[in-house]
Parts: sequence; structure tokens; C-alpha cells
Amino acid sequence: MTPSLLADAPLSVINIGVDAFTRSVREAGGSVVQLDWRPVGDGDPQLAWALAQLVGDAHDSTAPGSRIDRANAIAVDRITSAQPMLVDIALHARDVWPDMGRTLLHAGAPVAFDAMCGPMQGAMIGALLYEGWAATPGEAERMLRAGDIGIAQCHDFGAVGPMAGIISPSMPLFVVKNATHGNTAYSNMSEGIGRVLRFGANGPDVIERLRWIETALAPTLKAALATGDGIDLKGIQAQALLMGDEVHSRNAAATLQFLAAISVALADSDADPQKLRETLRFIAGNSQFFLNLSMVSSKAIMDAAHGIETSSVVTAIARNGVTTAIRVSGLGRQWFEAPSDMPIGLFFPGFRQEDANADLGDSAICETAGFGGASLAASPALVQLVGGSVGEAIAYSRQMHDITVARNPGLSLPALDFAGAPCGIDIRKVVDSGIRPVITTGIAHRQAGVGQIGAGIVRAPMACFTQALTALAAALDVREPAPC
Amino acid sequence: MTPSLLADAPLSVINIGVDAFTRSVREAGGSVVQLDWRPVGDGDPQLAWALAQLVGDAHDSTAPGSRIDRANAIAVDRITSAQPMLVDIALHARDVWPDMGRTLLHAGAPVAFDAMCGPMQGAMIGALLYEGWAATPGEAERMLRAGDIGIAQCHDFGAVGPMAGIISPSMPLFVVKNATHGNTAYSNMSEGIGRVLRFGANGPDVIERLRWIETALAPTLKAALATGDGIDLKGIQAQALLMGDEVHSRNAAATLQFLAAISVALADSDADPQKLRETLRFIAGNSQFFLNLSMVSSKAIMDAAHGIETSSVVTAIARNGVTTAIRVSGLGRQWFEAPSDMPIGLFFPGFRQEDANADLGDSAICETAGFGGASLAASPALVQLVGGSVGEAIAYSRQMHDITVARNPGLSLPALDFAGAPCGIDIRKVVDSGIRPVITTGIAHRQAGVGQIGAGIVRAPMACFTQALTALAAALDVREPAPC
Repeated sequence: MTPSLLADAPLSVINIGVDAFTRSVREAGGSVVQLDWRPVGDGDPQLAWALAQLVGDAHDSTAPGSRIDRANAIAVDRITSAQPMLVDIALHARDVWPDMGRTLLHAGAPVAFDAMCGPMQGAMIGALLYEGWAATPGEAERMLRAGDIGIAQCHDFGAVGPMAGIISPSMPLFVVKNATHGNTAYSNMSEGIGRVLRFGANGPDVIERLRWIETALAPTLKAALATGDGIDLKGIQAQALLMGDEVHSRNAAATLQFLAAISVALADSDADPQKLRETLRFIAGNSQFFLNLSMVSSKAIMDAAHGIETSSVVTAIARNGVTTAIRVSGLGRQWFEAPSDMPIGLFFPGFRQEDANADLGDSAICETAGFGGASLAASPALVQLVGGSVGEAIAYSRQMHDITVARNPGLSLPALDFAGAPCGIDIRKVVDSGIRPVITTGIAHRQAGVGQIGAGIVRAPMACFTQALTALAAALDVREPAPC
Repeated sequence: MTPSLLADAPLSVINIGVDAFTRSVREAGGSVVQLDWRPVGDGDPQLAWALAQLVGDAHDSTAPGSRIDRANAIAVDRITSAQPMLVDIALHARDVWPDMGRTLLHAGAPVAFDAMCGPMQGAMIGALLYEGWAATPGEAERMLRAGDIGIAQCHDFGAVGPMAGIISPSMPLFVVKNATHGNTAYSNMSEGIGRVLRFGANGPDVIERLRWIETALAPTLKAALATGDGIDLKGIQAQALLMGDEVHSRNAAATLQFLAAISVALADSDADPQKLRETLRFIAGNSQFFLNLSMVSSKAIMDAAHGIETSSVVTAIARNGVTTAIRVSGLGRQWFEAPSDMPIGLFFPGFRQEDANADLGDSAICETAGFGGASLAASPALVQLVGGSVGEAIAYSRQMHDITVARNPGLSLPALDFAGAPCGIDIRKVVDSGIRPVITTGIAHRQAGVGQIGAGIVRAPMACFTQALTALAAALDVREPAPC
């Protein structure tokens, strides 16, 4: 631009980069558009180069990007065609995994006991008391610090657990079969609200409730399931999206549907009448009862989409309370992890942001399958939690659409005129757009045992996706150009 | 306007009336706004004068309009403070009304048997067979034509019934008490889908199902209700609005909530196990089961708002299949009626608009209480039926807001950022705006017994409101001015 041009013609400017420039143009009487752009990968040239190589090229079917596109199409087909069915209750986790011995499973990627957040440490201690491996919390903590107890991840056992996500050998499990692809997934059962193990509480009341789940809830549900061919969890999830749930942080309608299904089955069963009464009252009094079922359903769906060579679709997002970690379909069992963000949300009276633990739990598996943050448009009640409006709820779902491979035609979002839920988070799109997946989440107190102190929204860290992208480039043998 | 003005200045026109004028302005290069206006009462000067006298005047507290405004505020307070509770089941209508003898109640305003629509005639014949008053449909029809059977309106008995709305002495009733105001309302019970009496079917299968309702469903629900303090129907309706129901033509979430409440109560009850099983399965298999409960809840709410001197709030909209009729709070038991419109909607395969019966049933009581058409914004799934979008669903609720007195803070509509449902249809606003109340409705085949053939939307006729307005003017002694 020459001075004469500036002087002669009305000034119309598109600015890319530092937005301070726009002010001087406006002050000069010109019109200016600030382009919402930033360099891919926050300016890392190697990452930008790798991303460019991994983006699809319709003209070259052998290019890495085209191979990824084809793999992702398979992954999305697996997601949309999955049929997760609740077929049984395992009365004890050790019945499913006879070799687990004295092992505790937890949420998220591997983390040593000493490095765990408060709620997870508290939950581990509680699990030892529940199992009878320790008589006191002090003894339990000593055993855990001494390494006397095995520690593993739920995900490596085909399982998921909310918050601390502890599964110990005596706990009963939901058993979910993906009827389309044959894989099986597991989760522990909702403990309800109040003082509960998943938030790190481990007092006698917590242990007693775990024992009631083992001896009353589990056998009652097992008796009900024995009367039929299983309960279609994805059907319930799809209906719930039409009823104001996003089926992660809100499960009110899904829980009612589950209760309807189970109450009919229970009427046909030989369940103990007293336990039946307790079971119905427990589920009816806990509008988040279905959360664990939404998680295990999502796990059964996403495991079927895992292991597709070269696919860049995220098949798990899991948080251990310290890091958030993702798995990618084409990148095996490796976790790509980074420090967890703090959820932003509404706190129960008496609690503040400073009390919050970092993002925690396996429940973000729901987002990978198209629920939770991906389907926030279905649940304006949740966005109210963060002071938002219906428009904001819809905007979150649109953002998730920008970083996913497809829409799931089986999961309609009414507020988007029944468009399908965004489906198959693509690490390339996350890195390219800078949009991090949004997750709806409960918020745990950072100290063990205080419990849930709020609910809100959080995003998965970008570093998970940049690391995964670099690994995918390496796996596809995408080499950097020689320096000029 | 002079020719010189037209020639000298750019033309900016606001046109009122015939919109053909706008074209000529546009062709002349001018800008034009067509005001969406038509004369009040379709140009009837007496009606326009009456309306002007009945509109509120903040400066004159003794003016008729101010008196109406104050009465309407009371009516709305009665609506919003009502607490309809399902407290009992009457095993037979004759237990509630010992003097009813051989009387059949029906939906809508009075109509002679010969003048009834096909579905209502068929249902009346079926009721005689069910009661054992006739052995064959032919005998039943002869008795009805001969006037051997009493005929009355549900509304005059504090009751409501969907579609034909037949209540005969042996039928069981929901008993709903308005805990705030002490009044009681009644309705018959949902027969489920398929061939049913309310659509005029009267074969042996229909009679058998009615008998099952009398001998299994009713005593089972009665046993469940005996275990507690009643079921909060307005609470269920309010929750259902957050779950995609408008609680008239869609009751999926409300039915699930009712099932949850009743299944817990049943587990505590001494109900017969076989009948309990049948009851749970019947409710779980009928997503419109709650319709009758939404209607009777609305009736209990609106009866409390009826009888307030000078109030112009509509307390009932009811259709007998020939006419649509309204009652107004300040105008006693008089019906203001006009020929029913034909519902516009989606038809089940094999059926067409020509097969449809005119708008039918007491269910529009839901709209008067703020549900159905008033809350369409809560239920985009329904607007899909008529090819509409979420935006259209919201627009219907906004229209209803334009003709109502207030918003009900206890009934939140998520898609309107949780604004309250429009509450208290004001006949003045209907006549003034020309906006007729929108009603969501099932569509009956015009022939008896074919059943439901679709679902859609209909509006109450304007003549109901103009007649009521004239009556209100007379009641308030608003006289016409002497001719000039």
C-alpha cells in the first residue's frame, strides 16, 4: 500500500494477527475486518507442516490425508452402527477378571498413588476398607504408599468409572455388549448423591452404601435383566437427547427411561420384594443414575471404533484428576496427556472455584461418542449452570461439529432442527481450528470426601491433540522437509 | 400528499390495508412498509366499540377495563398457585355421582345424538354395550336416538375426557384435588392406542379393554395411591416441559415420570402381582398415558380460576366434534361456540385431510392452563409433524403470549431461555390481535371406530371470542353510543 492509495480511496482493511492494528484503521475512518485467525499449532512450524501433510487430498487417494479420511469413515460407521445393550450384571468385578487379585482400577491415564489428587486417594483408601484389605484409613494409606496394592486403569480393562472411577474386585459391574461388533464394556454403578466413594469419601456410611449396591441393587438388577434380551442403551440415549438430556451431566430423562424398562422387567422377575422396593426408590431418587450407563454405553461404542489403522478419531478422553488424556483410534493404547484444566461452572452454596479439583473421571468418554458437550444443544438447562442461554448451548454443539468427522443420524438434536449429534472428534480438526473439545462435568472438591461442589464445563487440553498429531505423522512416516 | 411532494423527495410509505398498493410504490422506486393490521372484529363497529370500552385504562380504576384487569390478575394468581394432586381413583363414576343414573358424559358443549360426529356416536354406542344397557350396536343406537339415555357434558360434572370424551357410570376416574383451592376434578383413563372407544370404536376388543381398565388398571393404581399423599401432577407437567413435552399432544416424558412415581408406590402396595405387571406394561407401552392426567390437572387448575366476576380469562376450550366452545371466568356456565376448524397436520399412511373429523375433545383444557399450543416452544418434535422447525414452535408460543395475561413462572420453556409458559387467555386480546389460540391435537377419522389418523395443529374459532366479548360488554353494562 502506498501513501497515495491511502489518501485517494476509502480504506477497507482485513487484518490478520495483532488486533491493535484495527484501531488505527478505524481512527483513520477506514472500515476493518479482524480475521479470527491464529497460526496452526500456536505457531509451531513442524506441527503446521505435519498437519498439512495429514489433511485429506481428494486428488491423491494414496496421500496420508486420504488414507486417514478413509479410516475415519470406517470409525464413524462403527460409531453410528454400534448397538450397546445392557445384558447382565456381574455381581463382582473379579468374576469378570479372575486374575485381578488385589488390583484397583481408576479413572484416566496411569498415575502413581503419591501423585493422585485428593478425591482419588480418598477413594482408593475407601476401596481397601470396603474390600477388608485394611482395617483403618491409615493402614490403607500405608499399604497404598508401600505399593502393596496393584493399580491399573479402567480403560485397559474395557471399563469406565465416573470421577475417581475406582473399581475394586468385589464391586458389581454393568455388562454391556455391543451387539453389532461383539465387544463388551463394563462400569461400576452409581452410588447416588451425597458422601460417595467416587468423590473420595470413605467413611462407614460410604462403605455401607457400597455393600448395599453389592448385595441389593446388583442382584435385583440382575434378576430383572434375566427376564429379557437386554436393555437398548443407545435407544435410551437417543430418546434422552429429545428430552433435555445431553446424557453426561444431565441424565434425568434417561434415568426415567431406564427406570421404566427395569420396573417392567422387575415385575416379571423373582427379585426379593424388599430389595426391589429399595432398588426402585434408589433409582427414582437419583436423576444421574443413568450416567454410569451412558458412560459404559459410550465405551462399548467407542471401543468398536478403536484400532483402525491411520484413523485420527479420538476414541477416549479420560481424566485422572491431574492429567487429561486421549486415545486415538489409529494409535493403539498410547495415552496423549497434559495437565487437566479447571472446570468453570456453578458452585453449590459455600464453595468456590478455588475449592475445585482439576477435571476428573472417565465420563468424557460420553463426549467422544457424541454426547455431553457435543450435544449441549439438547440441554439448555445445563448451560444455565454457567450463566448461558439456549444460544450458547447451540454454539457449543456447533463448535463440536467443526472438529468432528460427521453427524450421527441416529442422535437428533431438536434445537438444531433435529440435525445429528457431532460424531468422531478428529485430532486434525482440533489442531487446525484451535477448538478444544468441550466437556460437561461435575466438579469435585479437591479434598477427599467433601464430594461434588458444582457442575460446569471444561475443555480438553490442546497439548493432547498436538502430541497425538505428531505421533500420527510419525506413524504415517510423514517426514519433515530438509532445511532450505 | 401532493404531486410535487411525490416528485421531489424519496418516497417512504407505510401502507395500512390492501397490500396491492405496496407494489405500485415499489415500482415507483419508493420504500414501503406494509403494516400487518386489520380492523378489530373483522370490521364490526359494535364489536370494536365494545372492545375499546373493555380495554384497561390505568388512569381510571373504575373503568370496565380496569375492573377486568384486576379480575384477570386474580384469575392468573389462581392458575399459578394451583396444586393439582392425583389423590385417588374412583373405581366407578357412579361412586362420585350417585345420581347420574343412565347418563353418558361427552366432550365439548351440548350436542344432540343425531347431530354428533361419527366418532362420538360410535363411542356412545360402545358405552351402552360396555354398561350392558344394550346387547347390540343396533339396539344401542335405537335407544340413543329415542332419547332413552341421558346425555350431559363432562365439564358440567367437573370432568374432562379426550376425543369423544365419553364417561359412563361404570368407568373408573382419576380424582384430582387442587390442594390450594380445594376444588376437585375428574377424568377417565387412557385406553392406550389402536381401536379405542374415544375414537368411536366399539367392538368386543374395545369393550374388553374398558373392562380391564375397570378391573385391573384402576384398582392397581388405587392401591398405589393409597400408599402416599398423592402425586403432584403440576410438578410432573413442569418437569415435562423441560423434557420435550408440551403435555398435550406429547406426553412421553410426563408418562415416564408418572410411571416412576407409580412404580415406587406399587412396590409398597398390596396390589395384585399379575395386575401390577399388566399395569406397568400398559403404561410403559403408551407414551400418551399421561394425556388424561394432564387434562384433569389442567381442569383442576382452571376451575379454580373460573367464576371471578368480570374476568375475561378463558377457563375452558372444548370441542364436541361439531363445534368448539369456550367458557370465560366472569361469564358463568355459558358456552360460546362456533363450528370447529379442521386440524392441519401429518396423517398416518393411507389417510388424508378429507378423512379427518373436525377438531374434537376436551383436551384443549390443556391450552387454557398454559400447556399444548401455549408451550409448543418446549416441543419441537411436534412442530415437525406439520413440517415446521424449532423457530416455528417458538413462534407459536410467542403468539400465545400475545393473547394471554401473564407468563407462569412455574412453567419454564427452555427454548425461550426459560421464560414462563403463556398463562390466562384473554378474550380481549384474542379479538384485538386477531390471533386465535393454537391447539395441538390428535386427529380422529370422521367415521366411528377407525381411530386416530394423524396429529397436528388447529385454532379455536374467532366467533367464540367475539360472542364472549359481546356478552362481557353486556354483563358490564357497556352500552353503545347513541347514533350520531
